[in-house]
Amino acid sequence: MNINVLSLFPAMFEGVFNQSILKKAQEKNAVSLNVTDFREFADNKRQVDDYPFGGGAGMVLKPEPIFNAVETLATEKKPRVILMCPQGERFTQQKAEELAKEQELVFICGHYEGYDERIREYLVTDEISIGDFVLTGGELAAMTVIDSVVRLLPGVLGNADSPVRDSFSTGLLEHPQYTRPAKFRGWEVPAVLTSGNHAKVDQWREEQTLRRTLERRPDLLEKIELTDKQKKILSNLEQQKR
Amino acid sequence: MNINVLSLFPAMFEGVFNQSILKKAQEKNAVSLNVTDFREFADNKRQVDDYPFGGGAGMVLKPEPIFNAVETLATEKKPRVILMCPQGERFTQQKAEELAKEQELVFICGHYEGYDERIREYLVTDEISIGDFVLTGGELAAMTVIDSVVRLLPGVLGNADSPVRDSFSTGLLEHPQYTRPAKFRGWEVPAVLTSGNHAKVDQWREEQTLRRTLERRPDLLEKIELTDKQKKILSNLEQQKR
Repeated sequence: MNINVLSLFPAMFEGVFNQSILKKAQEKNAVSLNVTDFREFADNKRQVDDYPFGGGAGMVLKPEPIFNAVETLATEKKPRVILMCPQGERFTQQKAEELAKEQELVFICGHYEGYDERIREYLVTDEISIGDFVLTGGELAAMTVIDSVVRLLPGVLGNADSPVRDSFSTGLLEHPQYTRPAKFRGWEVPAVLTSGNHAKVDQWREEQTLRRTLERRPDLLEKIELTDKQKKILSNLEQQKR
Repeated sequence: MNINVLSLFPAMFEGVFNQSILKKAQEKNAVSLNVTDFREFADNKRQVDDYPFGGGAGMVLKPEPIFNAVETLATEKKPRVILMCPQGERFTQQKAEELAKEQELVFICGHYEGYDERIREYLVTDEISIGDFVLTGGELAAMTVIDSVVRLLPGVLGNADSPVRDSFSTGLLEHPQYTRPAKFRGWEVPAVLTSGNHAKVDQWREEQTLRRTLERRPDLLEKIELTDKQKKILSNLEQQKR
């Protein structure tokens, strides 16, 4: 996969792109990550924003530098161009899986400024938001999307960290985990986990998974098809609450 | 504000913490940002994770290194300790405003591994998720929360980028913005914006704000108290759709 990022703060990406999975993915040639300062594509390499028509505070990113940068950098004729912005569609694991199928992605990151609407209308294919909160720029949002997409590319994760085990792959939250020491500052691990009885461990974990999901994210239970066993556990849990 | 981040990949934070608003906030002494590799707090500076009790794939972060690190680094007796994890409460602007009132924050970032449940139960005060997607680790999620919190601290943003203008501060999505050139590749800006009629510009922007929110995020309309004027505009927009 070929990923181009347009940003006025390319140095922000250095730490994240040169560590851990994103570093390994580049070494394995699973992805090429390129960050470009789109100021290079402005007239005289200078002005990337201007005052808004109709007045008002704040600046607006001009269309030319961004159109020019995308058209110069993308190798495909109609690349997938992603705008990071609060008005965008909420990013989900499903969207990550969809984007992981592409050959080429372009990310546009604004910083403080708004975007000239013609960028949205005639250049961008996807507007994505990572949540209802305000960031200084689109850079952290783009890194977040890129991390979650790249780890899904073939060959990037070893078997040990296989994406199949992930939260959200089952549609439920993970059960509690415990490791050594069995007793830490007087707090012991649940006895069932050290019992050696695998059937009981599995049963405990399934119950805990459902309990945690019910307590914290009941919305997730409505999105998946529950087995009869899971339905029975849930109905017991709900009776206990009464 | 004093922020301590615990991570096994401290170099990931360098680019983000040394640019833009986070850099300026540190220069203005509005925040102190410290990243610590909690491996330093493991026995012999070595083992931070171990196999899960009860069996299963994957590794689990041990309690001692993280307890030791938090207790050594935090200056407050009962600091606010935030665990980044998919099971956490969904991060919102409201949560950012709440955290911005604290004197000290500690962030714990896992990477691939799960957390020993005793960390959640006896050390952590807040579990936060930035969304329903899988990341390689908690680092990007922590940077996201830190960026959105630090920009709210007094004196960090200049008037020009005041947080008052932000999306989500009005509870509605922003109207489209346009800047020069008025005609770009044949695409012109809406005539009202170059008309010089301020009342008409305001009216257009209010309509566009409501239209965009209605089309993309109708859930936001239910969360705010609409003025009579806004209600009238919305009912007109809904009639046009029919």
